[in-house]
Amino acid sequence: MKAKFLHGGLAISFVLSGIAHYTHMNTIVQFVLSAITILFAAGFLGKATESVAHYAGDRLGGFLNATFGNAAELIIAIFLIKDGLFDILKASLTGAIIGNLLLVLGLSILLGGLKFKEQKFNKTLASHNASLMVLAIVALFIPAVFVKDLTPKETSSMSMIVAGILIVAYLLWLLFSMVTHKNELADEVVQHGEPAWSKRTSIIFLVLATAMVGFTSEWLVGTLEEITHRFGLSELFVGAFLIAIIGNAAEHSAAVMMAMKNKMGAAVEIAVGSSLQIALFVAPVLIIISFFFGNTMDIVFTTYELAAIAVAVLITKSISQDGSTSWYEGVLLLVVYVILGIVFYLV
Amino acid sequence: MKAKFLHGGLAISFVLSGIAHYTHMNTIVQFVLSAITILFAAGFLGKATESVAHYAGDRLGGFLNATFGNAAELIIAIFLIKDGLFDILKASLTGAIIGNLLLVLGLSILLGGLKFKEQKFNKTLASHNASLMVLAIVALFIPAVFVKDLTPKETSSMSMIVAGILIVAYLLWLLFSMVTHKNELADEVVQHGEPAWSKRTSIIFLVLATAMVGFTSEWLVGTLEEITHRFGLSELFVGAFLIAIIGNAAEHSAAVMMAMKNKMGAAVEIAVGSSLQIALFVAPVLIIISFFFGNTMDIVFTTYELAAIAVAVLITKSISQDGSTSWYEGVLLLVVYVILGIVFYLV
Amino acid sequence: MKAKFLHGGLAISFVLSGIAHYTHMNTIVQFVLSAITILFAAGFLGKATESVAHYAGDRLGGFLNATFGNAAELIIAIFLIKDGLFDILKASLTGAIIGNLLLVLGLSILLGGLKFKEQKFNKTLASHNASLMVLAIVALFIPAVFVKDLTPKETSSMSMIVAGILIVAYLLWLLFSMVTHKNELADEVVQHGEPAWSKRTSIIFLVLATAMVGFTSEWLVGTLEEITHRFGLSELFVGAFLIAIIGNAAEHSAAVMMAMKNKMGAAVEIAVGSSLQIALFVAPVLIIISFFFGNTMDIVFTTYELAAIAVAVLITKSISQDGSTSWYEGVLLLVVYVILGIVFYLV
Repeated sequence: MKAKFLHGGLAISFVLSGIAHYTHMNTIVQFVLSAITILFAAGFLGKATESVAHYAGDRLGGFLNATFGNAAELIIAIFLIKDGLFDILKASLTGAIIGNLLLVLGLSILLGGLKFKEQKFNKTLASHNASLMVLAIVALFIPAVFVKDLTPKETSSMSMIVAGILIVAYLLWLLFSMVTHKNELADEVVQHGEPAWSKRTSIIFLVLATAMVGFTSEWLVGTLEEITHRFGLSELFVGAFLIAIIGNAAEHSAAVMMAMKNKMGAAVEIAVGSSLQIALFVAPVLIIISFFFGNTMDIVFTTYELAAIAVAVLITKSISQDGSTSWYEGVLLLVVYVILGIVFYLV
Repeated sequence: MKAKFLHGGLAISFVLSGIAHYTHMNTIVQFVLSAITILFAAGFLGKATESVAHYAGDRLGGFLNATFGNAAELIIAIFLIKDGLFDILKASLTGAIIGNLLLVLGLSILLGGLKFKEQKFNKTLASHNASLMVLAIVALFIPAVFVKDLTPKETSSMSMIVAGILIVAYLLWLLFSMVTHKNELADEVVQHGEPAWSKRTSIIFLVLATAMVGFTSEWLVGTLEEITHRFGLSELFVGAFLIAIIGNAAEHSAAVMMAMKNKMGAAVEIAVGSSLQIALFVAPVLIIISFFFGNTMDIVFTTYELAAIAVAVLITKSISQDGSTSWYEGVLLLVVYVILGIVFYLV
Repeated sequence: MKAKFLHGGLAISFVLSGIAHYTHMNTIVQFVLSAITILFAAGFLGKATESVAHYAGDRLGGFLNATFGNAAELIIAIFLIKDGLFDILKASLTGAIIGNLLLVLGLSILLGGLKFKEQKFNKTLASHNASLMVLAIVALFIPAVFVKDLTPKETSSMSMIVAGILIVAYLLWLLFSMVTHKNELADEVVQHGEPAWSKRTSIIFLVLATAMVGFTSEWLVGTLEEITHRFGLSELFVGAFLIAIIGNAAEHSAAVMMAMKNKMGAAVEIAVGSSLQIALFVAPVLIIISFFFGNTMDIVFTTYELAAIAVAVLITKSISQDGSTSWYEGVLLLVVYVILGIVFYLV
């Protein structure tokens, strides 16, 4: 996206959606405007993060990139916690995971595959990613199986402890992939160009972008209940498809662009890496944040959400583990996404 | 099978089972005779299809082979739909899938492996087959999970839509494996010899064989209810083991023969390819056919059927994904088949 | 472990725990003493088995090693059967399987990986092990799914038949891995040094060690009920974690030692091989033994146990199938073990 268009679009849409919010315009107008603003702001936040990461040096930079990569989702999520909308929140986390694995990766493989007959990427990284996906499944699946014999208090304890363990596991993964085994996985890390701005400007823009995502997310979340009712949509569908697609827009365009430049490793890293981060870092952090809001969210996802995540992981693992993709594998991922979309809509 | 024996056996058994049917002989006699006739007729149909495919040229021929390969099952299935025997039909589809993966492939690997220490085949094809198997699991599993919150009308819609998506996915797979990535997978395609008959004769024989399978299937299906009751068998066992073994006899002998000639790739392609075709093409087509019969069959399989298909896919995936087999892996597949047979019999 | 320390420790602890048992000392004292004695006796039994195996020659020796490897578990298990404590027994089998896969293998990979950047082992063996693990899952999962429609008599029949099939499958695996395909898998077999004792002494020690494990196991099992009640622990937790860790202590130290000598293939073989043996040989043999005790144990595990075994197999398969490990993969296994420990404790 050209910078001028991005900045202009962001400024205009931010102002418009602010006006729509404070003058209590029609809910649909508010929803559409704030959604568009988040798309722009997420792109801007991504660019600012990358720029700050550049100045921070390799290691801290990688960490910043990894932790700010899902900042938009995180901020939307905090507003959902504040409003106690745990069901929509879990649905949106589910949606972010399956959206990255199926829609983002599926489009990347399909469009990349239409241009290049076969696209290869680092098998070692694919194998580690697959194992981390299995950990994510385990960490979400086990609490759901055992919860029926637990008291609410025990469920809270379990959720907090499992969340803590996953955060430690994720930090150790950053240590592994960015320090001790950096070189083994290095050629797959997304290459960053020159930073767009000076160090000082970058930091200011990072703060500014975060603030804008924050405001707009609050406006967007405020419209959800009415949107859900008016169109007869389920919270599950709104969270898992609408919010997730909006929150992940930045990853979508970045991954597809990489795939079409034949950098499939980078596309896989963006899509799969982002999914893993949500399951192993963002979701646990949200549980701990909810504890400080005084109402601990548990780690127990619904059967529907677990089924969706499980099949998304299953098909992604099967497709990515040979370290090579061709267009039909993108079709497979998209087919599973469409099937899930249909059943989530019907339920 | 020598041609003379095949033709003579078919002619005699067809006449006998016709007599048995129209003179209302003992049900067991009718059942046995029509089962034998279907075995012969399936062999004849397979040969006729192959011969027509030869004259049709590479691409159309491949398509014909793929779509007529399960013609016997398809015809039996249509008679089951006509009689509204959806439960036996789904059980027989389940049986065809697990029979091909476990019994046909298991026998091929075991018998091939007793002759050759290690048998190799194309890893790329194995990997694609595995991903398609995962799609099959997903497409059967997701509707079963979500169905409990759907109205009958929504279930019908979902079944039709998912069926349509799977047919598109399967046609794209044919495009991928027979057109755009033909060469990458080519050495694994079953080699066909000279056609047995002239073009004209082949087409006549194809029509004739299809008609014979059709008649005999109707006779066989007519005896099922009484057979089931008299021997105290469950519909699940009859559909998943008896009908499936009869309907897949042609694949059995073909795959084992290939394995014993050290063409394991061809054996895998017959067994796994046939399974995939049933799950991703035959079953969806039957759902759409049932819609035109005025009583839409849904895509919701029972827990038992899903469990059987899931474990069959799981063990086949595990065994085939390294592109190499030895005798013990055939034992593993057969062991799982026997365990499933026992529990299906007991239930 | 130095031999002198082992023998001295065994003699002293055996005498002390015998006194504690026969003078009806405090239950906790009895429990702790007999647990310590079993740790020593298991080490002694392992050494005696290895020494006898050496004199028995390659093939019979391999068989002896394989079947005596889990002798301690087997003997504890027989006393649990005698007392009709089927629930604790199944929990302890579950615990042995997940303990070997997650704790033993996890520690080996982590500690080995801290010393060596990457550790490799035979991919063919890893692939076969993975397929056997899938068989184990199938054999435990299928009966649990189908049991709800079976009468108790049918459940017993099914359990006995499935047990018989698994034993045959395991014996064929020994034939495969030790006779027909020995060389393909040979470099991965644990290397044994010189035997510690003469042939005659070895046999006497084998009998002696077996007897000591037997006595102490009975004493330990006698204390379990009170320990469980006094500390408010569930049978599930006691069986799956306490008993399993005690019964597997020998494997723990052996596997970790191998990993730290960069013999990861041997460590994997001990941990995964032991797990497979329990699922495919020890558990089925116990079912058949229970039949002769007049009260057939069924093969139906609880949902919790199946979930634990399934996730342990899933993550182990994912980590081991590329034939290479690094420290972070050990972390992943341990994380899953800790998560399971927490939920088993809370339930």
